[in-house]
Amino acid sequence: MPSYTAPVRDTQFILHDMLNVSQAGIPGYDELEADFTKAVLEEAGKLSSDLLAPLNTVGDTEGCRLENGVVYTPTGFKDAFDQVKEGGWPGLDLPEEFGGQGMPYVMGTAVGEMFSAANQAFTMYQGLTHGAASAILTHGSDAQKATYLPKMVSCVWTGTMNLTEPHCGTDLGLMRTKAEPQDDGSYKITGQKIFISAGEHDMADNIIHLVLAKIPGGPDGIKGVSLFIVPKIMVKEDGSLGERNGVSVGNIETKMGIHGNATCVMNYDGATGYLLGEKHKGMRAMFTMMNEARIGVGMQGLAQAAAAYENAVIYARERLQGRDVTGAQNPDGPADPIIVHPDVRRALMDQKSFVEGGRAFLLWGAMLIDKAHRADDEAADGLISLMTPVIKGFLTDEGYDMTVLAQQVYGGHGYIEEHGMSQFTRDARIAMIYEGANGVQALDLVGRKLAQDGGKHVMAFFDLVKGFIKDNDDNEAIKADFLDPLKAASKDLQTAGMFFMQNGMKNPNAALAGSYDFMHLFGHVCLGLMWAQMARASAAALDGGTSDAAFHETKLATGRYYMKRRLPATAMHLARIESGADTVMALDAEAF
Amino acid sequence: MPSYTAPVRDTQFILHDMLNVSQAGIPGYDELEADFTKAVLEEAGKLSSDLLAPLNTVGDTEGCRLENGVVYTPTGFKDAFDQVKEGGWPGLDLPEEFGGQGMPYVMGTAVGEMFSAANQAFTMYQGLTHGAASAILTHGSDAQKATYLPKMVSCVWTGTMNLTEPHCGTDLGLMRTKAEPQDDGSYKITGQKIFISAGEHDMADNIIHLVLAKIPGGPDGIKGVSLFIVPKIMVKEDGSLGERNGVSVGNIETKMGIHGNATCVMNYDGATGYLLGEKHKGMRAMFTMMNEARIGVGMQGLAQAAAAYENAVIYARERLQGRDVTGAQNPDGPADPIIVHPDVRRALMDQKSFVEGGRAFLLWGAMLIDKAHRADDEAADGLISLMTPVIKGFLTDEGYDMTVLAQQVYGGHGYIEEHGMSQFTRDARIAMIYEGANGVQALDLVGRKLAQDGGKHVMAFFDLVKGFIKDNDDNEAIKADFLDPLKAASKDLQTAGMFFMQNGMKNPNAALAGSYDFMHLFGHVCLGLMWAQMARASAAALDGGTSDAAFHETKLATGRYYMKRRLPATAMHLARIESGADTVMALDAEAF
Repeated sequence: MPSYTAPVRDTQFILHDMLNVSQAGIPGYDELEADFTKAVLEEAGKLSSDLLAPLNTVGDTEGCRLENGVVYTPTGFKDAFDQVKEGGWPGLDLPEEFGGQGMPYVMGTAVGEMFSAANQAFTMYQGLTHGAASAILTHGSDAQKATYLPKMVSCVWTGTMNLTEPHCGTDLGLMRTKAEPQDDGSYKITGQKIFISAGEHDMADNIIHLVLAKIPGGPDGIKGVSLFIVPKIMVKEDGSLGERNGVSVGNIETKMGIHGNATCVMNYDGATGYLLGEKHKGMRAMFTMMNEARIGVGMQGLAQAAAAYENAVIYARERLQGRDVTGAQNPDGPADPIIVHPDVRRALMDQKSFVEGGRAFLLWGAMLIDKAHRADDEAADGLISLMTPVIKGFLTDEGYDMTVLAQQVYGGHGYIEEHGMSQFTRDARIAMIYEGANGVQALDLVGRKLAQDGGKHVMAFFDLVKGFIKDNDDNEAIKADFLDPLKAASKDLQTAGMFFMQNGMKNPNAALAGSYDFMHLFGHVCLGLMWAQMARASAAALDGGTSDAAFHETKLATGRYYMKRRLPATAMHLARIESGADTVMALDAEAF
Repeated sequence: MPSYTAPVRDTQFILHDMLNVSQAGIPGYDELEADFTKAVLEEAGKLSSDLLAPLNTVGDTEGCRLENGVVYTPTGFKDAFDQVKEGGWPGLDLPEEFGGQGMPYVMGTAVGEMFSAANQAFTMYQGLTHGAASAILTHGSDAQKATYLPKMVSCVWTGTMNLTEPHCGTDLGLMRTKAEPQDDGSYKITGQKIFISAGEHDMADNIIHLVLAKIPGGPDGIKGVSLFIVPKIMVKEDGSLGERNGVSVGNIETKMGIHGNATCVMNYDGATGYLLGEKHKGMRAMFTMMNEARIGVGMQGLAQAAAAYENAVIYARERLQGRDVTGAQNPDGPADPIIVHPDVRRALMDQKSFVEGGRAFLLWGAMLIDKAHRADDEAADGLISLMTPVIKGFLTDEGYDMTVLAQQVYGGHGYIEEHGMSQFTRDARIAMIYEGANGVQALDLVGRKLAQDGGKHVMAFFDLVKGFIKDNDDNEAIKADFLDPLKAASKDLQTAGMFFMQNGMKNPNAALAGSYDFMHLFGHVCLGLMWAQMARASAAALDGGTSDAAFHETKLATGRYYMKRRLPATAMHLARIESGADTVMALDAEAF
């Protein structure tokens, strides 16, 4: 069974050495002193290692069970969820007004990585509740907030998101679920939703479904979609629970991974629902959840990679096989540990440099969200809006590939379920798909976000990169190894953007055919920027005579690997992008 | 449930338009006229589609079951195996002398792709038997051949390969299984072997295990390993079956995929074994099986990609979601099929161009084996020896990635097991691991094969590429789109090889740190060469007024995609290789 040790030291480095959070001037951030965040992260790490990680294999092996309309979660999940609730973790970054702890989103994200790494399927129950609570917080009436939020912030009630129907996923305009207005102002919701994570289970007193549906007579397509609150059990005026609502689970899906989370077919048969936000503005309200959810999914991709990497390292240090080609390292043993072999190193360094760079990217993104929300910073809002599809698409694609690499380190032992390495890849696979498949993220990035507000957000990103390079121009410790490659990669990104501008107007396909490569190119540049910033921080620490020189030397070495070995991918992505749409669109559909 | 239609047309194109097999002058190839191969492939395709493919999901869902020492295969496997035996398929390319059909290996490979694509777990039972029979054919005594081969060629008895032990996989020198010589010339085999595919099952009258073990007192390490024939049931002198031998199944592994194949822990408790080949030369004998097995595993990677691709195309044509950004293509329907979207195209073209290029690579490799064995061509033998790790490593890595891409086309429907797309990825995953994990293939390529015989095989490969480019220099139909990019990619490969030569001598790690990238760089150049050859064939067909212009136009368009969009990866791999070992080996083992 795999183990999990939370990356407290590394997260502390990102928060304090790199992002310097307590000095960032964002409301609420002044509390984020190093001692405080360390205490929170250590506590979360302990819970992850001791409580959640041991249940990961259990969840995978047992899965969820549907009997007579009741979904039973795997053994131990309910008790663990009770402990998580008691610790107040679900409300860590939700408002104190509703029982939360009011910490910034960046802390919720840092803790979320740990929980997800330890047990993704389990953590989704609270993750979806968090998203649903956020939507009610932003779009709900005062009465709705009062009714639902205190229970949801504590996860006494959990939440879900209901978008997909059998014939409509990405294209929600095709939705058939109906919401018939009633005289009392409520609606009767009828239709079938599929792929509903945590749709039904035995760990909460109630489940608050947020459901997209069409009010008959409204506009066609996506403009006629509204969002509704549909409780599993009706809530009386005094807040106590009443009768069952007309919503039931039809089935739970058999799937590749995240077996511990019940993925449900939900049937709404005239269920009572309450409009959340404005009529026909359901997509806007849903996007509040979806942007947060997308960053949360990027976090999952990173988290699975981090957990898998950690176990790959343990195995590579212990497994004795072959000899170091430059001379035995374990001469008294029957063979050397496989970590001596250059190709095993290559696999581990790919993982390590991604995980640490990706973690910085994720936390920087979370900080931008705090800046946007807590400091009403429009530039930060624009930047994170641009960056969201990159965080989601790049971190989940790469995160998945890293779990595959980690599994590969185990050889045949990675393919059997016993060691848990297969589960990391199977669980990580979903993150490339849900909350908008990664192709849709690429489309969002290139088709929408790039040109948003006259392209000013992407210009702001380039300014950020240029500014960083310029500001550190005389920093010899990082110039050749970090700034120069970052500059080259950033130039590839700009050239790609220019190609889209010059060709996308006359032929949108010329841009869209390169969208996926652009998302990855962008992701690499972001990680290059993160590594350059981390390198500056570590070089400064070493220069200042840090007591933890080994940590910072390792950080610099890991960053150098990324810049030398991973960042050159930008040129390949650019070449693909610049080849345009001709070869991509050459065939008739029948010719495939 | 996924469907399967065998690529008869495409395989025919490769055999006849590209490889021109019947004119190749290889003994036995003169029979491979187009009508003949078409009849064989169509029959194999029919069996694959109608019999094997429908059992693929069954095998995945049911898995194998161990009860009281007996392994039960999934429902329908036994009947299907009987039909495959009756059709004489297992002996297709084995000698007529022992009941086979004596066809060339290239035909066995073409048919093998179909069977594997339809049902990998099932096809492994006969695939392993084929490998074991080949080893007996090459290294067995006349008596051993007479005893075992007729039964194995027909798969009345099946075979296995027993290498791995719990503490030793790649490093077989650590082996503990013992073979004690007996007075009658036989040996008593004692030890535990793991990960034994098809180790025990209910579909054959007997199972012939080929087992690596050490004869006490022999040389240390790998040089003291011998190979033994250990029948599950003793064979009497008259060929009838006697008592059970001292070998039994200890467990069947729970694994990520290929559930329909029983992966067994095999316990040898003083089992009677017979030396196969020479004492202490077990590795040499085993390598006869392993090289063939490695090409067979490359074939599996390709086959899963082919099957997954086919289903992704079907889904992409049927699933209605969103509109073509350049104008509705299905204006009367609620939405356009997703195949209109450029990023879906990108995913499908990645798959199509890999599958068709990979198929050509595989069949070219199989033809080299025939040339080596049937025509005693040493150059061909050297070239295929060089190419084997590339076929295995590149086709399985890329093949796996393509199954992931195909799954992605399905969105959420690809993650649930219902549509079978998850199974393609889970089954394909093993091919990167078994018969030498792909990192070991890369090591074999760079650490051994490159310099073999003074580097003459890799020089022969470069001559082949150069010769092709030169011979077709005036062919305007393929020059710019195919020959020029092939030249550039080949130059990257040469530069990488040069880097190894200049740096690998003083520091082996400088070469080994780039071994994995070299394997992929090599693979891309091979597929580039294949595409250039196929393009020449299709251009010639079009020039000659073929009646099947659509096929050849599609072939050229698909090839152009590969050259434009995939081949540029060579520059990235070269950059990684040229960065050497410094960043790869920078950290102490404790620093990970």
